Amino acid sequence: MKNLMILCAMLTLSSSIAAQNNQFPTTTDFTELTDTKPHDNEAVWNKLPATLQFSWGNTNVRYPKLSIPDVTKSIRWQTDAWKGERINAQAVLWTKTNIEDVTVNVSDLKNGSTVIPSSAITTNFVRYVMTDELNKDRKGACGGRANKAEWDSSIVADMLDIIKVRDIKARTTQPVWVNIWVPQDAKAGKYKGTLTVSGKDIAPVNLQIEVNVLNRTLPAPKDWAFHLDLWQNPYAVARFYNVPLWSKEHFDAMRPVMKMLADAGQKIITTSIMHKPWAGQTEDHFDSMVFRMKNLDGSWTFDYTIFDKWVEYMMNEIGIDQQINCYTMIPWALKFDYFDQATNRIQFVEAKPGEADYEDYWGSFLKDFSRHLRQKGWFDKTTIAMDERGLEAMQEAIKVIRNADPEFKISLAGNYHKEIEPELYDYCLGYGNNFPADIKATREKAGKISTVYTCCAEPFPNTFTFSAPAEATWIGWHAMAGNYDGYLRWAYNSWTADPLRDSRFRTWAAGDCYIVYPERSSIRMEHLIEGIQDYEKIRILREELATKNNKSKLDKLNKLVSQFTPEGLAETQKDPTAMVEEARKVLNSF
Amino acid sequence: MKNLMILCAMLTLSSSIAAQNNQFPTTTDFTELTDTKPHDNEAVWNKLPATLQFSWGNTNVRYPKLSIPDVTKSIRWQTDAWKGERINAQAVLWTKTNIEDVTVNVSDLKNGSTVIPSSAITTNFVRYVMTDELNKDRKGACGGRANKAEWDSSIVADMLDIIKVRDIKARTTQPVWVNIWVPQDAKAGKYKGTLTVSGKDIAPVNLQIEVNVLNRTLPAPKDWAFHLDLWQNPYAVARFYNVPLWSKEHFDAMRPVMKMLADAGQKIITTSIMHKPWAGQTEDHFDSMVFRMKNLDGSWTFDYTIFDKWVEYMMNEIGIDQQINCYTMIPWALKFDYFDQATNRIQFVEAKPGEADYEDYWGSFLKDFSRHLRQKGWFDKTTIAMDERGLEAMQEAIKVIRNADPEFKISLAGNYHKEIEPELYDYCLGYGNNFPADIKATREKAGKISTVYTCCAEPFPNTFTFSAPAEATWIGWHAMAGNYDGYLRWAYNSWTADPLRDSRFRTWAAGDCYIVYPERSSIRMEHLIEGIQDYEKIRILREELATKNNKSKLDKLNKLVSQFTPEGLAETQKDPTAMVEEARKVLNSF
Repeated sequence: MKNLMILCAMLTLSSSIAAQNNQFPTTTDFTELTDTKPHDNEAVWNKLPATLQFSWGNTNVRYPKLSIPDVTKSIRWQTDAWKGERINAQAVLWTKTNIEDVTVNVSDLKNGSTVIPSSAITTNFVRYVMTDELNKDRKGACGGRANKAEWDSSIVADMLDIIKVRDIKARTTQPVWVNIWVPQDAKAGKYKGTLTVSGKDIAPVNLQIEVNVLNRTLPAPKDWAFHLDLWQNPYAVARFYNVPLWSKEHFDAMRPVMKMLADAGQKIITTSIMHKPWAGQTEDHFDSMVFRMKNLDGSWTFDYTIFDKWVEYMMNEIGIDQQINCYTMIPWALKFDYFDQATNRIQFVEAKPGEADYEDYWGSFLKDFSRHLRQKGWFDKTTIAMDERGLEAMQEAIKVIRNADPEFKISLAGNYHKEIEPELYDYCLGYGNNFPADIKATREKAGKISTVYTCCAEPFPNTFTFSAPAEATWIGWHAMAGNYDGYLRWAYNSWTADPLRDSRFRTWAAGDCYIVYPERSSIRMEHLIEGIQDYEKIRILREELATKNNKSKLDKLNKLVSQFTPEGLAETQKDPTAMVEEARKVLNSF
Repeated sequence: MKNLMILCAMLTLSSSIAAQNNQFPTTTDFTELTDTKPHDNEAVWNKLPATLQFSWGNTNVRYPKLSIPDVTKSIRWQTDAWKGERINAQAVLWTKTNIEDVTVNVSDLKNGSTVIPSSAITTNFVRYVMTDELNKDRKGACGGRANKAEWDSSIVADMLDIIKVRDIKARTTQPVWVNIWVPQDAKAGKYKGTLTVSGKDIAPVNLQIEVNVLNRTLPAPKDWAFHLDLWQNPYAVARFYNVPLWSKEHFDAMRPVMKMLADAGQKIITTSIMHKPWAGQTEDHFDSMVFRMKNLDGSWTFDYTIFDKWVEYMMNEIGIDQQINCYTMIPWALKFDYFDQATNRIQFVEAKPGEADYEDYWGSFLKDFSRHLRQKGWFDKTTIAMDERGLEAMQEAIKVIRNADPEFKISLAGNYHKEIEPELYDYCLGYGNNFPADIKATREKAGKISTVYTCCAEPFPNTFTFSAPAEATWIGWHAMAGNYDGYLRWAYNSWTADPLRDSRFRTWAAGDCYIVYPERSSIRMEHLIEGIQDYEKIRILREELATKNNKSKLDKLNKLVSQFTPEGLAETQKDPTAMVEEARKVLNSF
């Protein structure tokens, strides 16, 4: 049966695996897409000894699948960590012969009688997905990609699989990701343990782990100051797992994905208050979580069953409860849907901000929505959210919002407009744009959120599946260097048709639509979390150094941070990966 | 402005006039489509005297528009009538010169000091519409007609226009329809009056009217036994007048159309309880008058606002209140729509009668519908209605209905199935099929309705725009001869895109989709009413003759009636129009 499923998966490469199996969690293996790039030939591989090769590698490297990895063999991984920090390592396994039933195990890490239990450690086989490349001008990755042949494609290591037993084929490399979540109550000191790879008919091979827990503590993700806003797409999860929207099965399927997000310190619940807020640009469009009926007499009826269910799930079951962003009053296509009682059909109002039909559609809704949110006790957490819209449209939309309830919070991810800045509670600027220092200070004092976003426009830093992994970490440092409160990305899990194997999409560069896989994290996501942790560490160190009035160390820290800007990058001419590697080491030395 | 509108109408022949004008009632004239058939040439016309020609004609003739009418000039129309009867006459006006501002007036009809007032008399200019023909095999008119060029088209007299002043072009014929609704309280006797045609720069011309009111009374249409069931299409009215569905404007626009139907003795309100009960076969598809929401927990919510509003309008404002037929549980495409709370979209269940999804969809609805209908006091008037579906599907649907409420009435227009006959309250058979005599008697005793229908399948009798007008009258006689309680036609007003000018459609023969025009009756409709009146007269005479035990007259009457069957027609070898003309005269002699 298992073989049959693999066969099926091979035969229908383009359809999603889980949808075929219609089971959850997805515990069967699957066949990766073919790596068509040049790689080490059989003769090269055959020079290896017959035994399985296993060594520590580097988390910043995506090791090619069909070549012998470029590593200096090392059996000991040594690192510093804060209490409460998640640290990553990458081991690499390669073999010239087939090895069946390979498993990876990790021991408790011991420091005398104190222990970091193995339950705090996750190991994953790193899996290979299809990616593409930047646009030909290397200046970005926006625009359509209908014809995949026009972009160079290749297989890259990115996904951290949850499967626990794999057969490793002869002449392949199999990286292994190791993540240790140091308990917050761990005692400082050196902890040692072992990573073991085993397989059928082979002697187990060990690597050593040595974690030096420092006497500093990172708060739990929930308490991080970093304002993380990766937009969730519940519709993609329902489609991938072929489960009814908002059913128990759907919420069950979302749990691992959304838990990963909560563990990254996400603050915001993404909600859609209209049909196709982004004109259905993702594989699975967002639909309205609010039901609107235009009654025969012209009045409106609203129902919030879905909205409430989703928000309550995220708050109570997932623990993301700080903010609710509601998209959008100014979609890319200015068509607003409603169920029309007369025609018994869904109809659309076409209206621009500033027009009477727009005011009727949105004003009626916002008045009722305000009432509902206040009743639920969510009004102060909720923003009416727009993205990448022009000043004039924003001004008209703001009028309608203020008319409905002057106390509504409003958010925008887009250009900086000084005219409406005071109106925006949550304001996110595109990479390369900064808030004027005085404005940022005023916003901070008023408890307003000011963040930065990247999207397809940025060749660097980004989190495409072909981006250097350290770029994701670089983003966290950049948020601190640019004096932002956090980071926004438009797509956390807007999965492609076959997300486990093919990260390419009909638009933008591969991986733009999602940073995590169904139930599975990624090299990109773990690096992003590293950057956020570093942001928190810097924040804590700055407070501490300021309290201690340790100006020299504070200057040193600030200088270290200040490189992580477009200007700093240009000045230092450093390779961003090296920059991240160095800076992270220095950070642990404070 | 008026000229501009006419110009517009001429320029955009294919779009509807009222939709352009967006006004109601439609009082502007419009240009008929061009008559391309051979006709009398100028030389022939020029032999006429210069004066306007005016004569009584024959209601059974569609006079050609561009030829001199084939009439024996006659200035006196003499007829018998029952009290309460509507009688028709056709006058014809033809001219070799242009005459502007032509109007037709009628005097009171006088019998000594008693009067049939002119307000009981309607005159209409007969207008010309585009028609086509039967299928090439002359055996019917079913099937697609995408390419109009494949069917011979011509202009025929059919519509009875409501415009009161017209310019008559040189060398054209303009028929004038006269309808007298003899008051039920009129005294028997000979009534005389005058029909006058006037115009700019011409001397008025008179024709004489002489109505001999017999000492018999036809009941008001409401009290007719004839079970008339012409299916109404409210959606077509909203589209033609470009008014919002179920708005005040919509109901206003429907009033004249539906009043005409009530005056024909219509018994049934046509309602649709699902989306596209007939797969959208008409220019304007029927939509569901019931709103269904499938809630997140799998339960259903139903709303009857539209259904109630339509039914109440028909009952209270139009006076059609005997029966409500609800289409359909077995549509041609077995797809059933509902609003899905989860996806916030309309979804479809695809399920066949007998399947669990079908039972869930319909069973849940029918239970709630029964509750609602009982609450409104309509349960006993309502049938769950199907048409032209097979026995097995009917049996499964009946199971679901009985499961929901065993007392539900059910109707079918279709083949005769003895297996389900006892289940059917309202059973309508296709032309040429009869109920077994004992079954019909049992049905009658049980108060069940047993009727007959025609559709595109019948080359004769029918009410296409090219059908001989008397065929519509023949139908009434046939209903009596075939021992039916009445007649059903699938389309009363499923108007084409440009119904005032072009009765052709993408399927079936021209005129199949509608028998009346926006606000306007037709030669076909008036003939149908004549047939229904004759049915009532026969019924009344039979009762009277039976009471009087006048067997010879009863036999004579029955013999007269019995010709109006497919067999009778074949035996007598008579022209149906002549058959109707003769029989109607004899009927007035009883």
